[in-house]
Amino acid sequence: MLFDVFGTLVDWRGSVHAGLTAFGAAHGISADWLGITDAWRGAYKPAMNAVRTGALPWTNLDELHKGALLELLPKFGVPALGDAQIDELVRLWHQLTPWPDSVAGLNALKSQVVIGSLSNGHVALQVALAKHTKFPWDMIFGADMFGHYKPDVEVYLGACRFLGLPPAEVMLAASHNEDLAAARALGLQTGFIARPREFGTPDERARPSQDWEVVADSVLDLAGKL
Amino acid sequence: MLFDVFGTLVDWRGSVHAGLTAFGAAHGISADWLGITDAWRGAYKPAMNAVRTGALPWTNLDELHKGALLELLPKFGVPALGDAQIDELVRLWHQLTPWPDSVAGLNALKSQVVIGSLSNGHVALQVALAKHTKFPWDMIFGADMFGHYKPDVEVYLGACRFLGLPPAEVMLAASHNEDLAAARALGLQTGFIARPREFGTPDERARPSQDWEVVADSVLDLAGKL
Repeated sequence: MLFDVFGTLVDWRGSVHAGLTAFGAAHGISADWLGITDAWRGAYKPAMNAVRTGALPWTNLDELHKGALLELLPKFGVPALGDAQIDELVRLWHQLTPWPDSVAGLNALKSQVVIGSLSNGHVALQVALAKHTKFPWDMIFGADMFGHYKPDVEVYLGACRFLGLPPAEVMLAASHNEDLAAARALGLQTGFIARPREFGTPDERARPSQDWEVVADSVLDLAGKL
Repeated sequence: MLFDVFGTLVDWRGSVHAGLTAFGAAHGISADWLGITDAWRGAYKPAMNAVRTGALPWTNLDELHKGALLELLPKFGVPALGDAQIDELVRLWHQLTPWPDSVAGLNALKSQVVIGSLSNGHVALQVALAKHTKFPWDMIFGADMFGHYKPDVEVYLGACRFLGLPPAEVMLAASHNEDLAAARALGLQTGFIARPREFGTPDERARPSQDWEVVADSVLDLAGKL
């Protein structure tokens, strides 16, 4: 049982917004921190796509986050920050807060199946995040193990290969339809977890776009339905 | 904090011997199961070296164990076994018993540092073994992540790279001097854990051959000395 992490298990938006706000308060900087949070996450796919198409060599999420932040901050009128401050902000993505059901749900599943992450975060980020959240992973699969980002096929098939399992014996759980669609196309089973608050106001992204094998509204709900 | 697994954390000899003996009893086969255990483990380094030198393409430990067992059994007068029985025996290496201090020691360390395996076992074997033993890994590093076996440098440096840490900030703990020597040559810190019963009768292999940064007689002892 593999899990997407950002959005599916952790509230990146609330956590990064809170972290940026606290940083601003500590340094006497006011800015539209929620706008910066959304713009920062908005830079995620184009940056990963530059890696996926080969326009950029392999670049991990910390490096992509740092590059995006350095471009964003001046646009939002934030004064220049030092390297240590930038690194502190990049590390907000290592300290995200789980949704309330995530840890209990993973523990419930762990007693029955092998549970692993399958995230675009690199191993170091995910190890730090699991320490912070207490996610009880049996295995962490990071994008740097494959040199590819989801939805590249290498990520899904690479994890199945490491597990020694055919795709049909692996389920991906995610709150993002496109992640599940890529997994299903390769023969994995799919579990949709609705996270209507991921992007703030709920929209159609929080609804299943296909007849996924399981549709749940929390990890606990998913565990119960399996 | 990275750990070797076979011998350092688990009693492979006692476990495999017990598993083979039980198999023999269940199928009415008597044989020198302890001799088979030692010969099986003895085939480990030559087989891995064939991979390390390129004489064999990448081959995981299950496959190496299977090949070695098929060669060994006739020599010990064991009648031909079916594929399912061979696979059952190969999987004994997924179900090894920890030394009495291993789980408590790892839990003590986990509260203070990141703990990971660094084993010649592949990911699937190690995931199964961690389920069986309840090793609370933050991260599993398997030989198949690197396409190399220890003591190839790719394994030690690859784990440091995945962790985002310079070698000097990583310690390898192992009961084998040659594993620690390879790690030290690359700048990692080293912790020796004496396992005098690993090979049956204690011999010089159970004594430190260099001034390792820490010398301990259990994982709990190591945790206390750090």
